[in-house]
Amino acid sequence: MRIGIAGCGLIGGSLALALRDDHDIVAYDPAGTGDIRPVPRLDDLLPADAVIVATPLAQIVPTLAALAARSGGALLLDVGSLKRDVVAFARSAPASCSIVGGHPMAGTTERGYGAARADLFRGRPFFLVPTDRSDGSAMAAAGELVRSIGAVPTVVSAVEHDRIVAILSGLPLAVALALARTGADVSEFAGPGFRDATRLAATPPELASALLKGNSAEVRAALARFRAALDDIEKDLE
Amino acid sequence: MRIGIAGCGLIGGSLALALRDDHDIVAYDPAGTGDIRPVPRLDDLLPADAVIVATPLAQIVPTLAALAARSGGALLLDVGSLKRDVVAFARSAPASCSIVGGHPMAGTTERGYGAARADLFRGRPFFLVPTDRSDGSAMAAAGELVRSIGAVPTVVSAVEHDRIVAILSGLPLAVALALARTGADVSEFAGPGFRDATRLAATPPELASALLKGNSAEVRAALARFRAALDDIEKDLE
Repeated sequence: MRIGIAGCGLIGGSLALALRDDHDIVAYDPAGTGDIRPVPRLDDLLPADAVIVATPLAQIVPTLAALAARSGGALLLDVGSLKRDVVAFARSAPASCSIVGGHPMAGTTERGYGAARADLFRGRPFFLVPTDRSDGSAMAAAGELVRSIGAVPTVVSAVEHDRIVAILSGLPLAVALALARTGADVSEFAGPGFRDATRLAATPPELASALLKGNSAEVRAALARFRAALDDIEKDLE
Repeated sequence: MRIGIAGCGLIGGSLALALRDDHDIVAYDPAGTGDIRPVPRLDDLLPADAVIVATPLAQIVPTLAALAARSGGALLLDVGSLKRDVVAFARSAPASCSIVGGHPMAGTTERGYGAARADLFRGRPFFLVPTDRSDGSAMAAAGELVRSIGAVPTVVSAVEHDRIVAILSGLPLAVALALARTGADVSEFAGPGFRDATRLAATPPELASALLKGNSAEVRAALARFRAALDDIEKDLE
């Protein structure tokens, strides 16, 4: 298949590396595409069998919109960390489009193509979120792509996806930020336990903002559950 | 110097490995002492220039008490995670005793001599807490021992020590336990970020209980500061 990659950072680059042995891969990224064959403009990713949108979160819907107008039969699969905006966009996208939301549950706090690895997704869950523009063959093609990189395709709704991500990404990020602030004046003594517990506080600010503010209702719900659990633990101290 | 090690697990074993090239080391541990020369009874650690007490936290004061009665000129240095009980014990210990509280800020969630490493303390802070039985030569000898294993001797009061440990160990442990409970129903999807953030939830229960219940006033104060920081972060979501 010919597969285009829009955004060739950690995730896009890792997808390109994982797919390039079996597919014809081209990538578009103004910041560079490492040793993945570049195209000069986003539009040049088309025509293709699939285009994977792996831009920063804020650019995902605009990129999908730019591609949707002339995607032909190409599967458009985004791999951003939140899915409701993608599902909302798909609802009003051209009827001929094929759009599936995706989210690999893999990553590091490193960024960019330099940190990309072909095995980043191996054995990891990879959420697939159907949209109003996902027919059976689109979901099947997305599932096949995910399986071919060694990940485990896991179908969820956008609402359930964003709830899970609030618990597994937004909540621990908020907690790490609060822990880091609480321990700031004694952090020179911190050992590996505290450092691991606060590692997510090093999340790039724009991603942190997206995971927290971009999913604020679900993050607030997760924080409420977390506070109740913490209250129970504090009661045990008495 | 002849140095006795009471308790030859991760910390005691690592101290023995770090010290044995330059000193005559014997260890007492009913659970075994790995390849450190054993003695059959605690009392057989004496006479010595120093005895390091590296038992589980609950046994530290009883072990110090057993040794203090006949310690001669030996420096007694404990390496437990909390210091107020040691300072309180020292106050009523025989006047001839030499007792310094110690706490290396190093460790892993692994346990036992099998996880011990000579370089565990290298570059790490090692708190030294003076007691009513710490004269200048006792503090100097403790500082020298700490420097000889590559750690950084850092003198603090017992109160300040237990406050720091509440923030750097008790608080992140309580938070990890609460995060793990909150995410229990979606943990199958957890990536490295969530796993690192909850790693301390695997702390052995008796150590967890000591760090939380054994230091409950300071842990509660740390929890109050953490909640305030988390509230600020949540306000930013709006």
